Amino acid sequence: MDPRIRQHAEILVDHSTDVQAGDNVLVRAPAVAEDLAVAVFERLGDRGANPSLAMRSPRADRAFLRATDEEDFELHGHELAEMEETDVVIIVKGTRNAAETSDVPPEKTAAMARANSAVSEERMGKRWVGTQFPASGEAQLAEMSTEAYEDFVYGAVNKDWEAQRTHQEQMVAILDPADEVRVVSGDATDLRMSVDGMKTVNDYGEKNLPGGEVFTAPVPDSVEGEVLFDKPLVRNGREIEDVYLKFEDGEVVDHRAAKNEEVLTGVLETDEGARRLGELGIGMNRDIDRFTYNMLFDEKMGDTVHLAIGKAIRETVPEGQPYNESATHLDMIVDMSEDSYIEVDGEIVQRDGTFRFEDGFEG
Amino acid sequence: MDPRIRQHAEILVDHSTDVQAGDNVLVRAPAVAEDLAVAVFERLGDRGANPSLAMRSPRADRAFLRATDEEDFELHGHELAEMEETDVVIIVKGTRNAAETSDVPPEKTAAMARANSAVSEERMGKRWVGTQFPASGEAQLAEMSTEAYEDFVYGAVNKDWEAQRTHQEQMVAILDPADEVRVVSGDATDLRMSVDGMKTVNDYGEKNLPGGEVFTAPVPDSVEGEVLFDKPLVRNGREIEDVYLKFEDGEVVDHRAAKNEEVLTGVLETDEGARRLGELGIGMNRDIDRFTYNMLFDEKMGDTVHLAIGKAIRETVPEGQPYNESATHLDMIVDMSEDSYIEVDGEIVQRDGTFRFEDGFEG
Repeated sequence: MDPRIRQHAEILVDHSTDVQAGDNVLVRAPAVAEDLAVAVFERLGDRGANPSLAMRSPRADRAFLRATDEEDFELHGHELAEMEETDVVIIVKGTRNAAETSDVPPEKTAAMARANSAVSEERMGKRWVGTQFPASGEAQLAEMSTEAYEDFVYGAVNKDWEAQRTHQEQMVAILDPADEVRVVSGDATDLRMSVDGMKTVNDYGEKNLPGGEVFTAPVPDSVEGEVLFDKPLVRNGREIEDVYLKFEDGEVVDHRAAKNEEVLTGVLETDEGARRLGELGIGMNRDIDRFTYNMLFDEKMGDTVHLAIGKAIRETVPEGQPYNESATHLDMIVDMSEDSYIEVDGEIVQRDGTFRFEDGFEG
Repeated sequence: MDPRIRQHAEILVDHSTDVQAGDNVLVRAPAVAEDLAVAVFERLGDRGANPSLAMRSPRADRAFLRATDEEDFELHGHELAEMEETDVVIIVKGTRNAAETSDVPPEKTAAMARANSAVSEERMGKRWVGTQFPASGEAQLAEMSTEAYEDFVYGAVNKDWEAQRTHQEQMVAILDPADEVRVVSGDATDLRMSVDGMKTVNDYGEKNLPGGEVFTAPVPDSVEGEVLFDKPLVRNGREIEDVYLKFEDGEVVDHRAAKNEEVLTGVLETDEGARRLGELGIGMNRDIDRFTYNMLFDEKMGDTVHLAIGKAIRETVPEGQPYNESATHLDMIVDMSEDSYIEVDGEIVQRDGTFRFEDGFEG
C-alpha cells in the first residue's frame, strides 16, 4: 500500500477525530477508497476503537433514486439509530465518475437530502471529519492524471497541522477582533462588510481534511459593494462561470453569470437568507496550488477568498449576534493572487496573496 | 450491467425477503459486489423501501484485527442499534482473495465473532438472506475462470424457486413424518438415525440464495454407525480431507481425517454438543453440478447428503424435542451419486442420487 495512505489514515484518526479506546467509529467510504478504509481500520485497531464500515455508492444511490417515488423514503430510521450510537464519523469522498448522479431528477436529490437530514443533523453533534480519496473521477474533474492527482491530494492532506494551526493563528488574531473587512480585486471586486462581534474559526484539518482556512460570518445587513467570482464553481454537476453579485444593505440586488445563470438565480431564490452572505473565508493552505473543481480543496487554496451566500456556520455566530438562516450554502471564490488586497479596519493585511506576516509582503 | 445481476437482485428483494414499502433494508456487500448492490438498490427503489449500504471489507477487517487487542472490541453498539431498527437484511458474500484473513490469529477471529454475536442474534429475528456474488476469489477457490463461475452462480441462483419448492415438497412429505433414516454409500458409510418428532424444512431460496435442500434434525442420541465424508470441506481456511466418524448412542467415538485431522479434533472438542449431529440435509438443487469449496453451494448440490456436527437449526426442533446445543456447527458432505442409497422407514427413497419421485429411479 502507498505509505501516504497510512499517513492519511493516522491524521484522520489521531488528529482530526482524536479517537479513543472504546469509541464507536463509523467509516463511510466508497468502494473505490477501500485502501484508505483498510488503513483507517488498522489505525482504529491500534487505538482500541470499535469500527464499522458503511459503503457509499453513488451508482447504487442513482439506481435507487431513479426507481423510487419521491415520497417513499422520508426517514432512514436504521441509519439514524446507528448514528445516534456512534461517537466518531469519518467520511471519505471519492468516485470513478463524478457525473454518476447527473441523470437523477433534482427533486429526487432534494428528497434524498430531506431523508438524510436527521442523520446529518445527528452527525453534526459527533466528532466527524470529511476527506477525499484521490480517485480517478475527481482526477478527471481536475483535468489531472490519477498519479498527479494523488500527489496533489497527499500534498494537501499529509502535512504538519500543528504548524499550519500556528501559521493561521496570525490571521485569526487579525480577523477575530476586527470590525470592517474590505476585499478588493482588479476593477470588478470591491466589497465591504462588518464582522463585528462574530467569531473567527481556525480550520487546521479537524472537520475538513485538508483544512487550511480561517473563516467567520459577516454581519448579514452590513455587506456593500460588488464582487466577481472568477474561479470555478460547480452546483449539482453544472458549472456556473464568472458569477457577479452586487450587494446593498447586505442583500443581493443584482446578479449575473457568464454560464448557467439560471442555476445561480435558482439558488438566490431559495429563501430570504440565500440573498445574504453567510460566510467569509480566507484560504491559507499553500500546498493547494491549483483549482480542482472540488470545494473541499479550492476554498483552502492560498491566494483566495471565498464567500458563501446562504446559511452561516453556527460556530462563527456567537449567541446574541444576527444569524443568517437559509436552506442553502453556496461557496464562491475570488482569486486574490494579482492586483488584489484585503483590508481590515483600514489596514492592508494581504496584498496579491501575500499576508502581512509572510515574507515578501508589500503593504 | 449483466442482466443476470438484475434478476439476482429481484429474487433477493421480491422472493427471499419479500420487501414491502417503507421497510428499512440493510444491504451488506463487499466492494467487489458493487454491481449487485446497485441492482438491489434499484429494486428497493421500485418497492418503496429505505435502503442503506454497509460495506464488508475483509481487508479492512484483517487490518483491524491484527492491530487491535482482543479485549478491546467487545460490543459494536452502533451496528447493533442499526440492526434493531432494520426490517430486512441482505448479505452478499464475495472477495478478490479468499485467503484475505489467513494471517489473522484465530483468537482474534473468535473475539470478532463474540463482538458480532449480539448483532447476528438480532439479525436472526429479521427477514434476512445470505447470497454470493461471483467474484474472482471464489472462482479461484473453485478452480474456475471468473466467467465460468459467473455462469455457475447465476445458474444456481436465478431459477424458478416456486417450481423448486414444489419439487422439494415431495421429499419433505417423505421425511417430515418419518422415524428412521439410513444413509448408505459404498463400503465406508452406513449411518442410521431417528428424526422422529423433528420438523423437516423446505429451503427454496429464502434465507440462503441459492437454496435447494430439505433439512431436519436427528434425535441426538439416536445416531449409530459410520460415515466417510468424501467431499471438500474447508474450516478457517484449512481443508480437511476424507473425514471419518463413528457414532455410538449418538456420540462420536472414533474420528480420522486424511489431512488436517487436528482441525477436526479441535471442532469435536469444542463442547459436548460438538460430538453429536445437529443437522441432516439433503441437497436438491440440480443446477449445482460441481463442488466449489463453498458450503452455500456445496450443501445444496443434487446427489449429496450433508450432516453437521454441533448446533441444531432452531426451526427443525419443535418445542419438547431434544435440542442439540453447541457453539459450533460444521457441515460435511457425502457423495450419493454412485453405489449409494437413502432409506426412510425401511423404504429406499433415493438410489445413486435419483429420488423415488424422479424419472430413472430404480428402487
